[in-house]
Amino acid sequence: MDNKKFTYKILISYDGTQYGGWQVQPNSVSIQEKIEEALFQITQSNIKVIGSGRTDAGVHANGQVAHFQVKTLLSIDKTIFSLNSLLPEDIRVLKMDLVPSTFHARFSAKSKKYSYYISTKPVLIPFYRQYTTLVPTDIDIPLMKEAAKSFLGTHDFKSFANQASKGSASVDSIRTIYSIDFMEEEERIKIIFHGNGFLYKMVRNIVGTLIDIGKGKMSIHQIKQILEAKDRRFAGSVAPAKGLFLENVYYGDINES
Amino acid sequence: MDNKKFTYKILISYDGTQYGGWQVQPNSVSIQEKIEEALFQITQSNIKVIGSGRTDAGVHANGQVAHFQVKTLLSIDKTIFSLNSLLPEDIRVLKMDLVPSTFHARFSAKSKKYSYYISTKPVLIPFYRQYTTLVPTDIDIPLMKEAAKSFLGTHDFKSFANQASKGSASVDSIRTIYSIDFMEEEERIKIIFHGNGFLYKMVRNIVGTLIDIGKGKMSIHQIKQILEAKDRRFAGSVAPAKGLFLENVYYGDINES
Repeated sequence: MDNKKFTYKILISYDGTQYGGWQVQPNSVSIQEKIEEALFQITQSNIKVIGSGRTDAGVHANGQVAHFQVKTLLSIDKTIFSLNSLLPEDIRVLKMDLVPSTFHARFSAKSKKYSYYISTKPVLIPFYRQYTTLVPTDIDIPLMKEAAKSFLGTHDFKSFANQASKGSASVDSIRTIYSIDFMEEEERIKIIFHGNGFLYKMVRNIVGTLIDIGKGKMSIHQIKQILEAKDRRFAGSVAPAKGLFLENVYYGDINES
Repeated sequence: MDNKKFTYKILISYDGTQYGGWQVQPNSVSIQEKIEEALFQITQSNIKVIGSGRTDAGVHANGQVAHFQVKTLLSIDKTIFSLNSLLPEDIRVLKMDLVPSTFHARFSAKSKKYSYYISTKPVLIPFYRQYTTLVPTDIDIPLMKEAAKSFLGTHDFKSFANQASKGSASVDSIRTIYSIDFMEEEERIKIIFHGNGFLYKMVRNIVGTLIDIGKGKMSIHQIKQILEAKDRRFAGSVAPAKGLFLENVYYGDINES
């Protein structure tokens, strides 16, 4: 009996608005199951698709990465075309590669980039309503930039992590954030996080705290205290899901995702 | 009896995906009626909102202009805030001005700008699925740019106009197009039309013909013949509504909308 399997890595972009999140779960439709259903249609076998990590309900992705294993060699171009024909238009497979069987979308990941979009305009244009969080026009952006520096480097981010549901209790809550960059675009501000990994709701909890600081509801020196408390109840608000995008998952050199 | 009325001009942005178009019509929800409903809530009177022109089902606007008349002076900031609180998030009032009672959103308009978005990428990213038309990757863009020049200037555009439904039979189908510009963005190409007015489905019919030329299904010299025929059946395909945006309506100087 030939047990040989072929491992494929796929790059996926999705609009998370209509989904219960990346991961299969009861009572909501997940992006993972949509891709598994499409792969079943193509291969007539049940194929488990493993993502680099979950994204929550309403969170988007420009570059989620997943892998799956099949018993037969697939034509890359044909499979991308078939997947995109079968998938709803708010989920697109952008790339597919045959990779060594040791590749694992989650365990092989070296670092990740997330973006969070906020707008300080008095009115949020309709095209960004599901992709951007409106903050007060007089929010102190320079203060938020200064505050962001307190999160850089290696910390125990337990205070900025929500308890995930079953099966994902992270014992280790120490993570390293390499950079937090603010990019001002015409209608909004993009805050880009690059780190070796992010805990459950960590980006949204950090953004929520930064927004609270920008509003004058918290002060910068509290960040150190919150980190030291190692307790979620000390951190600020959680920012809405709709402003968050998983941008890239890096498996080696930062220039190749 | 005091018959004095105040005329207000509003600037509106909307995502047309969920609507039957700008104008009130049976069997579908229109943007116009949503604004009229919100104004009724605010003023407790039936106020007719008159747009610069209709946009079709699925067509979007960054800068539609409309006017309405009321018997009492309104606070601009409060009314914008109330309208946006009452309107669905896919319709936003960006600006409101008290204007002379002679102002008419449609009859006072001097020129308009529309944009049409196409993508030549193999896969359309999910965030553009309702705002961009996917064309073949090997479409001849330089040829389309060359072909666009044939539409510049004053022509009888009858061949590029669909017969509108009741009440809008345009006797005069002569229009002037000042410019057609192609702007290449990261994921898509924006084609910007500026003209003194556009007939029903005229931009989409011109874009459809340009796409047919880019695909090699029609040739540039046919444009002149089609214009001369003054018959819609001679023109190419009609491009999908979702790629079209009403960008600006100009009432005087092109720098002020």
